[in-house]
Amino acid sequence: MQTSTESVGTSAASSRPPRIAVAGVSGYAGGELARLLLRHPALEGAKPVFLGRAGESEVGPSTSLEALHPYLTAPGAVDSTPVYSFSWDRIADAGIDLLFMATPHEQSREWVPEAMERGLKVIDLSGAWRLQETRNRDVYRLKDTNPALAAELQTEAVYGCPELHRDAIKSARLVANPGCYSTSMILALAPLVQTGLVDLDHGIVCDAKSGVSGAGKAATAKTHFMYAADNFSAYNVFGHRHTGELLEQLHLSADQIQFTPHLLPIPRGILATIYLRLKQSTEPAAISAIFSDFYRDSPMVRLYRSPQLPQIQHVVRTNFCDIGFELAADGKRMVIVSCLDNLLKGASGQAVQNLNLMCGWNEQEGLL
Amino acid sequence: MQTSTESVGTSAASSRPPRIAVAGVSGYAGGELARLLLRHPALEGAKPVFLGRAGESEVGPSTSLEALHPYLTAPGAVDSTPVYSFSWDRIADAGIDLLFMATPHEQSREWVPEAMERGLKVIDLSGAWRLQETRNRDVYRLKDTNPALAAELQTEAVYGCPELHRDAIKSARLVANPGCYSTSMILALAPLVQTGLVDLDHGIVCDAKSGVSGAGKAATAKTHFMYAADNFSAYNVFGHRHTGELLEQLHLSADQIQFTPHLLPIPRGILATIYLRLKQSTEPAAISAIFSDFYRDSPMVRLYRSPQLPQIQHVVRTNFCDIGFELAADGKRMVIVSCLDNLLKGASGQAVQNLNLMCGWNEQEGLL
Amino acid sequence: MQTSTESVGTSAASSRPPRIAVAGVSGYAGGELARLLLRHPALEGAKPVFLGRAGESEVGPSTSLEALHPYLTAPGAVDSTPVYSFSWDRIADAGIDLLFMATPHEQSREWVPEAMERGLKVIDLSGAWRLQETRNRDVYRLKDTNPALAAELQTEAVYGCPELHRDAIKSARLVANPGCYSTSMILALAPLVQTGLVDLDHGIVCDAKSGVSGAGKAATAKTHFMYAADNFSAYNVFGHRHTGELLEQLHLSADQIQFTPHLLPIPRGILATIYLRLKQSTEPAAISAIFSDFYRDSPMVRLYRSPQLPQIQHVVRTNFCDIGFELAADGKRMVIVSCLDNLLKGASGQAVQNLNLMCGWNEQEGLL
Amino acid sequence: MQTSTESVGTSAASSRPPRIAVAGVSGYAGGELARLLLRHPALEGAKPVFLGRAGESEVGPSTSLEALHPYLTAPGAVDSTPVYSFSWDRIADAGIDLLFMATPHEQSREWVPEAMERGLKVIDLSGAWRLQETRNRDVYRLKDTNPALAAELQTEAVYGCPELHRDAIKSARLVANPGCYSTSMILALAPLVQTGLVDLDHGIVCDAKSGVSGAGKAATAKTHFMYAADNFSAYNVFGHRHTGELLEQLHLSADQIQFTPHLLPIPRGILATIYLRLKQSTEPAAISAIFSDFYRDSPMVRLYRSPQLPQIQHVVRTNFCDIGFELAADGKRMVIVSCLDNLLKGASGQAVQNLNLMCGWNEQEGLL
Repeated sequence: MQTSTESVGTSAASSRPPRIAVAGVSGYAGGELARLLLRHPALEGAKPVFLGRAGESEVGPSTSLEALHPYLTAPGAVDSTPVYSFSWDRIADAGIDLLFMATPHEQSREWVPEAMERGLKVIDLSGAWRLQETRNRDVYRLKDTNPALAAELQTEAVYGCPELHRDAIKSARLVANPGCYSTSMILALAPLVQTGLVDLDHGIVCDAKSGVSGAGKAATAKTHFMYAADNFSAYNVFGHRHTGELLEQLHLSADQIQFTPHLLPIPRGILATIYLRLKQSTEPAAISAIFSDFYRDSPMVRLYRSPQLPQIQHVVRTNFCDIGFELAADGKRMVIVSCLDNLLKGASGQAVQNLNLMCGWNEQEGLL
Repeated sequence: MQTSTESVGTSAASSRPPRIAVAGVSGYAGGELARLLLRHPALEGAKPVFLGRAGESEVGPSTSLEALHPYLTAPGAVDSTPVYSFSWDRIADAGIDLLFMATPHEQSREWVPEAMERGLKVIDLSGAWRLQETRNRDVYRLKDTNPALAAELQTEAVYGCPELHRDAIKSARLVANPGCYSTSMILALAPLVQTGLVDLDHGIVCDAKSGVSGAGKAATAKTHFMYAADNFSAYNVFGHRHTGELLEQLHLSADQIQFTPHLLPIPRGILATIYLRLKQSTEPAAISAIFSDFYRDSPMVRLYRSPQLPQIQHVVRTNFCDIGFELAADGKRMVIVSCLDNLLKGASGQAVQNLNLMCGWNEQEGLL
Repeated sequence: MQTSTESVGTSAASSRPPRIAVAGVSGYAGGELARLLLRHPALEGAKPVFLGRAGESEVGPSTSLEALHPYLTAPGAVDSTPVYSFSWDRIADAGIDLLFMATPHEQSREWVPEAMERGLKVIDLSGAWRLQETRNRDVYRLKDTNPALAAELQTEAVYGCPELHRDAIKSARLVANPGCYSTSMILALAPLVQTGLVDLDHGIVCDAKSGVSGAGKAATAKTHFMYAADNFSAYNVFGHRHTGELLEQLHLSADQIQFTPHLLPIPRGILATIYLRLKQSTEPAAISAIFSDFYRDSPMVRLYRSPQLPQIQHVVRTNFCDIGFELAADGKRMVIVSCLDNLLKGASGQAVQNLNLMCGWNEQEGLL
Repeated sequence: MQTSTESVGTSAASSRPPRIAVAGVSGYAGGELARLLLRHPALEGAKPVFLGRAGESEVGPSTSLEALHPYLTAPGAVDSTPVYSFSWDRIADAGIDLLFMATPHEQSREWVPEAMERGLKVIDLSGAWRLQETRNRDVYRLKDTNPALAAELQTEAVYGCPELHRDAIKSARLVANPGCYSTSMILALAPLVQTGLVDLDHGIVCDAKSGVSGAGKAATAKTHFMYAADNFSAYNVFGHRHTGELLEQLHLSADQIQFTPHLLPIPRGILATIYLRLKQSTEPAAISAIFSDFYRDSPMVRLYRSPQLPQIQHVVRTNFCDIGFELAADGKRMVIVSCLDNLLKGASGQAVQNLNLMCGWNEQEGLL
């Protein structure tokens, strides 16, 4: 069994790239993950193994990646990429070192313990392992076959936000890849909250808006074109399950932050408008300096010079999180705007960023 | 039993408006029909009875029209409009005179004979009764419990295109409301084809494009926002079931016209671009005169002065069919562009236009 | 000169409808106003006079309403509706009683004094006359030829929000029609703020989002399809000129409310998400009661039962403002969601609502 | 002066990459070209020089590429990429070998002769040099300062469709990059037309649809979001200037092919639906074989197995042209569907493909 201090698949004896599998490749995040991995410079010649998820009708004996995600079709239809039903045997036969799980949270919670017992490292894109506190995790209604082991793994799991936990990710065995909404808000808030400048008693308001891919690939009344197009709506007010990540990562209590998600009539992209008060009147330049220092070694965060603000079109199809802000004349009331692509920095791009860290590669490898 | 020469519910003895029911009110066409009937000037004080369709989970004991179609909510939530499961008893109890069927074609084929035996007049929005020739109807795979009666009703059924069959509709007992694509193409072609000016040996090409509401309310992979948005695609090449209406209404053979439907990333609207050749070189003014004569008494067709062409935004949410054309320098090659709203002139608006004719009202009543 | 207590054009001696002119008919609000007035039941046979605005290239000697707004084309192109350059002589010759001004605020500020001296009543859709306090009006950089008269008219001007100032509007000579964003927020907040329940020291956050028609008809980099489509952005943070209306109508100070507008990739519609705290823990039913009482006689406001929330698709193309809310478990933190169509309840529909009040007609006339 | 048989900047003496400039970088095609060149593997360390076009207000002394195209912003705002006003001196000083011109056709016609006299190779993205026959070029109203030189260069110019003229492009000094619509139709038709299978007497109908970026970056009434969104329209029927390319590249006469462009409410992508008749009844497999043979060595064309058809979402943001077809039951009537991204395979991607050929690099370099 590998020890957690080695980088994946890159022991001294062999510099071969890790053998990677992706479970749950049929969804949007799975498709983007496949796209990123197939063109990843460090994985040339090491094509990942693509797997379905449990109980999935879309993945059968002759499913191909190109049939699930036609935009992945390479020239010449001959070399189609197979997608297999999920099985531990196939994972063992393929000598997989690292497993991405783009699966529903119930499956991630069930499969991760076995994966880890089999010596795999795991990057899980679901919400199953992101939350340390039981009350925050309640919203997912997770059931553990082996509660003791699950608790142990939960403690070991590293929240996969490279900008906050870069070193821990490098040596992690289990990375819980953050939620899309959470990433946009945590990256916008962490620098200021950590300085203690934010008036937490006043509370923080996050008004966040996401494109339709955030609702997943299932055809439902709310993902119907006739519902989403030319429309805009709020949902899950006071109750979105990404809230727990805000509380834990920013060390806030439930009455210090609230977050309202909305559905935008666009395919991809999240923009969060965040309202807070500073404890004392502050100059924009001082705020800029705090952000710049915090993200000095974080190439995936782009900072805007106040009063310029980011917008969704400039982050779509990138792995960047763009952040800008404005201060009121009083130097206290502040609006931060944060944007990212929910399928990339909000999901699969961040997962590859975590892979890069775990493998000792450049953090941006395959993401520019 | 009513005789077919009387207008619905407006016998000499009583000038009361007809009692109307709508079956299948949960779909898009049903919703538009409800909207039009509820504000129809001639139906004031005579609220229609709204019914579901067979096997429909959306319609239960306490369903309201406003829950199915929230945009129909009137101020003051108190007077919600009930929607009932379909039953003949309810229709009988309510003394219904005329039944709109916005139901799947299988149900229309099954229910219409009983409706007519019960003395109801019917306006059917499905494809079940539009086609006289069996081979054209094959594509619907209809099954008749009483084939002899069905054949009789089929012969009696009037194709509900007011611009072509106005008089027959006035006295019809069963109106088969035309397809959305068919309406756009038949209205564009009928004037010229009937004059004999079109070179039918050369053949007619119809390239038609429809908004997503044409695909219905069911949530499927193709109505998912992520499939339809920012996309455009052809489908059912050489095989769309509206083709039979073109053949029968324009008296063409299958090799004289072809029609390719496409899916537009917009909620509503159809635009058909039609290519044909004239037998002899003709001036635009002569073509305009043919169109103007043909539609002299048809207020729902708006003609454009060549080379001006209609576009979807000007017909959406109206019951108009807009038609324009251009001729090549040779005076023979011709392009006709025809537009309509697929849910109005292509479905429910045209159904109300037929109701108006059957009731002896102004053809445009409730449609402007 | 008319006295302000008479309804427009409906003196005892004559029950004729008022003679109406619309200046600035070429913009989006002007087009919607034309559409509403042309089909207004009380104006049958009294077609308004349509005028351009100063320095407008779009309006020439032979301009027609249908050329400016093709969707207004009636069947039969013969009776096109003329649009004239603005001139006082034409207004005098036509015996106009009431003038709608859908003009830029500079023109409204310049023309209204003359219109009033000529005995016209005015409904102005610009921001020119909405604000009583000079500091709030500064953002418009208005210049007055006759400052004394302007000050007098400013005092006389009634803010045209029927739900707040119904009686004053009925007898007004000059109605300043509210801004689109302002309407959505004022209607959402007025009931609670007036009860004193809102913790104003904590402050109110309004995160508002508007469709592109709110940016006007001018073709600019920001109204280009390639900028707006698939995008979403915040703008004018801490500086939108509708803020003054919030302050004056809700009697708040500048540090008690802040408002951030955003641009939605849809043609029409505004949704405002409003965050506030109540002074004491309150039940949803109590909040509902406050709203219901406040809007008891206001048919254009539709209230949702918590936790149901309105969305843009249900108000588009209506004159309704839909309002819903949710309370956090603490009974204090509250989110209100308010929606309207920015061109109707947010502009031209509200203007017609004001016309109805000024003429003594039913408030909803021509708006359902 | 370089001779035309050498690859650009890669003489035996030096394997350095060519020095490249892009004129007209502010438009959509210019931006995409910058994006592709900045990440082109063979150009690492050889950043192109970016230039404006004549009379352009957007490009001033301190313009940066990132200000013109914010999505090109790299992490760390420091290293912004300058954009200079166009000047021959700057081109000479920078030792430019090859000039991309993403300029209006008038400027391309004026500047190319001078560029060639200065020994530069040119890839011109405008329509200025695509057409050999004067009558086809008339539509551009080009004026030549030195008609004799222009005629000579016109004869020398190679139509930059790699799939048709690969070898000529390799040694070309002046490449006229094809039009976006033309590329989609020429690639769909060339294989069959060249075999002689198409019934040209019957004529070919091309119904083509393009996203709004095809209309350019200028803010006009037709690129306004309110015009393009939720809309669809035909334009330039019988008169689009890409028609000449079809005639010359497919060796057809004007009455053998017609092409109608339409405006799709999407940012990017073209889909052409092409109608033709074969001279004799043919099996789909035989048609497939013709296409496969023709494109055997053309990695940028992806062929679909009939009756599968391509759609816009699968080519957007790629340099592929996807082609599929269906045959009617008679084996003669045929519909071909062809898709590409108008800014990539229809413009800048194809330009880079031509660069690759001119430099002796892999045709796909920097395009996958």
